[in-house]
Amino acid sequence: MTAKASETMTANRPLHLAVVGSIGLDTIETPVEKRVDILGGSVSYACAAASFFVKTGMVGVVGTDFPEAYEALYRRLGIDTSGLQKQDGKTFRWSGVYERNMNARRTLSTDLNVFESFSPKLPTDYRQAPCILLGNISPDLQLHVLDQAQAATFVVADTMDLWIRIAREDLMRVIARSGMLMLNDEEAELLTGERSIRRSADILLGWGPSHVVIKRGEYGAVLASRSGLFLVPAFPVDAVVDPTGAGDSFAGAFMGALAEAGSTDDKAMRRALLFGSVVASFGVEAFSLDAFLNLTRADIDARFQTLLAMTRVE
Amino acid sequence: MTAKASETMTANRPLHLAVVGSIGLDTIETPVEKRVDILGGSVSYACAAASFFVKTGMVGVVGTDFPEAYEALYRRLGIDTSGLQKQDGKTFRWSGVYERNMNARRTLSTDLNVFESFSPKLPTDYRQAPCILLGNISPDLQLHVLDQAQAATFVVADTMDLWIRIAREDLMRVIARSGMLMLNDEEAELLTGERSIRRSADILLGWGPSHVVIKRGEYGAVLASRSGLFLVPAFPVDAVVDPTGAGDSFAGAFMGALAEAGSTDDKAMRRALLFGSVVASFGVEAFSLDAFLNLTRADIDARFQTLLAMTRVE
Repeated sequence: MTAKASETMTANRPLHLAVVGSIGLDTIETPVEKRVDILGGSVSYACAAASFFVKTGMVGVVGTDFPEAYEALYRRLGIDTSGLQKQDGKTFRWSGVYERNMNARRTLSTDLNVFESFSPKLPTDYRQAPCILLGNISPDLQLHVLDQAQAATFVVADTMDLWIRIAREDLMRVIARSGMLMLNDEEAELLTGERSIRRSADILLGWGPSHVVIKRGEYGAVLASRSGLFLVPAFPVDAVVDPTGAGDSFAGAFMGALAEAGSTDDKAMRRALLFGSVVASFGVEAFSLDAFLNLTRADIDARFQTLLAMTRVE
Repeated sequence: MTAKASETMTANRPLHLAVVGSIGLDTIETPVEKRVDILGGSVSYACAAASFFVKTGMVGVVGTDFPEAYEALYRRLGIDTSGLQKQDGKTFRWSGVYERNMNARRTLSTDLNVFESFSPKLPTDYRQAPCILLGNISPDLQLHVLDQAQAATFVVADTMDLWIRIAREDLMRVIARSGMLMLNDEEAELLTGERSIRRSADILLGWGPSHVVIKRGEYGAVLASRSGLFLVPAFPVDAVVDPTGAGDSFAGAFMGALAEAGSTDDKAMRRALLFGSVVASFGVEAFSLDAFLNLTRADIDARFQTLLAMTRVE
């Protein structure tokens, strides 16, 4: 098949996954480097990661200052951008600084701008997507997306401490309507009052979802379901350049791999989570979406095999 | 076989593993409980854990105040105590307090007492043991043990930040003479100047040992060798009661399982490390050695299978 033929086929393929979330211009300072107004946001990372597996569409909002080059970059990564809304005003901006060990970060500023009045609208073909990833946005917007997603068979919801504190009721509605809740260990503790991953996951499963993923940063994640726990290893990279968006890349690649597998059985879940770890590990080796630009599916598959070999006992 | 016959056989079996380290009376405060003068020390935890697998002998020192009940407890756990030295004076004492999340601990006091003039002496049969675990004591004492261990085929050395800071030269000699160095992630960074586990392990392997294990507390550990990395999962427990000695139990059970397997090939190493995780996970579910008192090999094997199932992808 020629490259051209492949592109045409991609354009005509039905959408497998719709992702909603934030799009931001990030200013990030690490111990070794500072980058200004680089492309970020949960939907950017998640869609870039998912697009290695299936046709993925983004739902997000940008302002009139959003660089044309960044829109072109989305398309170059194979992301469907028909759900990208442009609004009068400035694009959401975030700036933060990472401490020496890259584990702790401090937010310097957050300017919501057009994100403040964001009302996600799913294009017609997005409404038929079987997989929906609700990136970290306010729970009422996540509910609004769910109301439009008529064909969804598997919904994953991400969240953050802010919504747990100020919008718990709406968040509980999102959780009850999701197949999987994905959050980090601190958020799980804040939401359930339990520090133990096991107890915390049990409580969350009791609220509706069939699966819960508790993320632990550079240490991987834990999947909990009725069939028990699965310890998701993180791929150990040589050097973390910028950990921003790692959780979103993890979620996106997981959803993409799962949609590609066309199954939510235990084996498909575990494999998809490993793909999440692998793609996230590439993502943190560069700023913004840079690491994804020259990445191939073959690179991903090779690292997947390496990660399997790093966890295999017998 | 009757229990009596089994005991006799145990007494006559050759020693597979000799462990040297500290014996302490610990006073420990956690967010929910305080315990005074409970049995602790690296050699106590390591020997208790190893004894589930092979005949294990301890080399350590106590004072005249050391309770007879604690000596009886060692024997009840099946530990060979012929290398236990009793000296005039008081037993080593440590007291510390754990923060709410049990990850951070603060030392309140350390009284070396008889440990200050400790000179480890290996009984004749210990000198023929094929496996030696050098628990965390000063590197010059670890070297002194190595000089006596004439039949050692596999030596594992543990260490801590103090020795890295004040006795680096002797520590380098210990590392060069060991088959495996075991230390936590912060110690590895302090020793090599590298935060990346991968880079840090490469440097440590260059100093002589064929294997390096970098421990990450509740997140497990990483084994590095010429055949690559193995990500050692930690078993997620419902509730951590007291994490003291977890690293020592991990090391002890690992060495015991390895000695039992009688092999240092990749599969034996990986299985032994999983046994380390399993036994350490039981250990933290109670204070001191309490969790080991009613623990059976069948309990350990069952949790081993559960942990395998939690990491298996295919």
